[in-house]
Amino acid sequence: MKVLVTGGAGFLGQRLTHQLLAIGHLCDRNGVARPIDQLVLADVVTANDFGDPRVHVVTGDIADRALLGQLIDADTTSIFHLAAIVSSQAEADFDLGLRVNLDVTRQLLEHCRRLGHLPKVVFTSSVAVYGGPLPELVLDSTALNPQSSYGAAKAAAELLVNEFSRRGFVDGRVLRLPTISVRPGKPNKAASSFASGIIREPLHGETSVCAVTPQLRVWLLSPRRAIEGLILGHNLPAANFGTSRIVNLPGLSVTVAEMVAALGRVAGQETVSRITFTPDPAVENIVKSWPGAWDMTRAKALGFQVDPDFDSMIRTYLEDEAAR
Amino acid sequence: MKVLVTGGAGFLGQRLTHQLLAIGHLCDRNGVARPIDQLVLADVVTANDFGDPRVHVVTGDIADRALLGQLIDADTTSIFHLAAIVSSQAEADFDLGLRVNLDVTRQLLEHCRRLGHLPKVVFTSSVAVYGGPLPELVLDSTALNPQSSYGAAKAAAELLVNEFSRRGFVDGRVLRLPTISVRPGKPNKAASSFASGIIREPLHGETSVCAVTPQLRVWLLSPRRAIEGLILGHNLPAANFGTSRIVNLPGLSVTVAEMVAALGRVAGQETVSRITFTPDPAVENIVKSWPGAWDMTRAKALGFQVDPDFDSMIRTYLEDEAAR
Repeated sequence: MKVLVTGGAGFLGQRLTHQLLAIGHLCDRNGVARPIDQLVLADVVTANDFGDPRVHVVTGDIADRALLGQLIDADTTSIFHLAAIVSSQAEADFDLGLRVNLDVTRQLLEHCRRLGHLPKVVFTSSVAVYGGPLPELVLDSTALNPQSSYGAAKAAAELLVNEFSRRGFVDGRVLRLPTISVRPGKPNKAASSFASGIIREPLHGETSVCAVTPQLRVWLLSPRRAIEGLILGHNLPAANFGTSRIVNLPGLSVTVAEMVAALGRVAGQETVSRITFTPDPAVENIVKSWPGAWDMTRAKALGFQVDPDFDSMIRTYLEDEAAR
Repeated sequence: MKVLVTGGAGFLGQRLTHQLLAIGHLCDRNGVARPIDQLVLADVVTANDFGDPRVHVVTGDIADRALLGQLIDADTTSIFHLAAIVSSQAEADFDLGLRVNLDVTRQLLEHCRRLGHLPKVVFTSSVAVYGGPLPELVLDSTALNPQSSYGAAKAAAELLVNEFSRRGFVDGRVLRLPTISVRPGKPNKAASSFASGIIREPLHGETSVCAVTPQLRVWLLSPRRAIEGLILGHNLPAANFGTSRIVNLPGLSVTVAEMVAALGRVAGQETVSRITFTPDPAVENIVKSWPGAWDMTRAKALGFQVDPDFDSMIRTYLEDEAAR
């Protein structure tokens, strides 16, 4: 298998690469596990190659069509298309967001179509495709109504992945991810950045300013479950998806206050005291337009796993950090 | 008001023009009725100018960016974007469908954004954005799952009109039209062409082959109500739309067998005997993926009107034909 990971230098891209190298194989279109011979990591910043000869790092902008042509050839069996402009950045730079989140996805699909070799394309989407008045529990049958430029571009791109799959141009799979928590590293330009920051920074002895109110309900997924989800989403037979290639991955519904309480249980009240609340309406308006929970029936039937509680999500973050 | 109608030579474009010339005014963004000074009709084929000095006919392909730049300037207050590649044609020519149904819409929105004058943009969408397993009555909150290239491109374009409106780049309104019946003229490349053909051809003494089974349920709107809907959709204040600019226009839910029975009541059994049924799976698969009915609560609250029954839709067709 020759695998391309766009956004390969990003947090999820690097975690996925690490896991794929460890597993060493992916399922082809006939459901047969085949060794991963090559793993191409493409990103605007240079990705870590883990010192593994299977990894090829390509640094460049995939909005550049010529580069896209080099990244995907007739041997490319699998594409994890993770490259994206995150929510607050897409809101601030409308053109950049639409170009990367929609146009690059379209170009990737068109390129695969021209090659005609029907690769698997795993595309990550988001809670942000939902918005407006929503039921307490969002269903697979609930209409999208994105209230951010990020969500709108992701929603339009989802339609294209689905349609290019229906037409037999690619074998696409769209995985809608809950907000990932706890992310390692530094805050990013996602409106949901607080959902990791309020845990991560206090655990490392730093202060954290939470940009949303404690009452806000969020829908979370741990990095481990997210990576498992990406790999399962790739390996599932196309027929399992039915008339839609889009899956709402399982999540955990918690309020910010409950996240903070879990942090107290895991790490003590001194850690919690490093959090201050200074709601930012620009951030809160985006985040509160997202669902606080969605129905997991379909995802669970497809085999996707769920995190049991937020305490364990904090603990796995600490384990993962200790292992690094 | 300077008004642009794309697809201005088409059936709806011509009907709309005729009606706009008769009314003579449209509401501006402040809800004030203002005279229509100029009506630009753009299409790949040359539109009828009705001998009216307000009408300017432009023949050309709006996929040509230079032409789009000529059609829309800072004086353009209103755009009815009706130009489209219909369903069976978009299924047969994927690139053409995506270019006209999605890319042209995007270019039009981008052009308006650059001009910065926030025109009203009325965009027509379709039952075809729905698909897959559907409830008997589709709700505004029902997820889209298009099963045709036409529906997928329209759904993606809807998202863009909504998002460009949310960002304040245009004042967009997306009107999802039921299948229009009874259309005058000749059969077209829409999968729904039968929904007019089985009435129109027999009424004119010609035979008609129906490409779907009599049991199929369709969701219909008369040309008169469609034109009224386009004008109301333009004139409504932006605030009335809430968090979504998309409206499912009212329709009438009938089976093909009920349409034929209505034809018998209006025009007699000899007329009905000119219809033969030869289902075409390619057509039926597209049409049966569309909803047979959707909830009209929102549309009615916004003031959109409904046809009372199919008999009257046949009679208004005969009246309109007699008037020509």
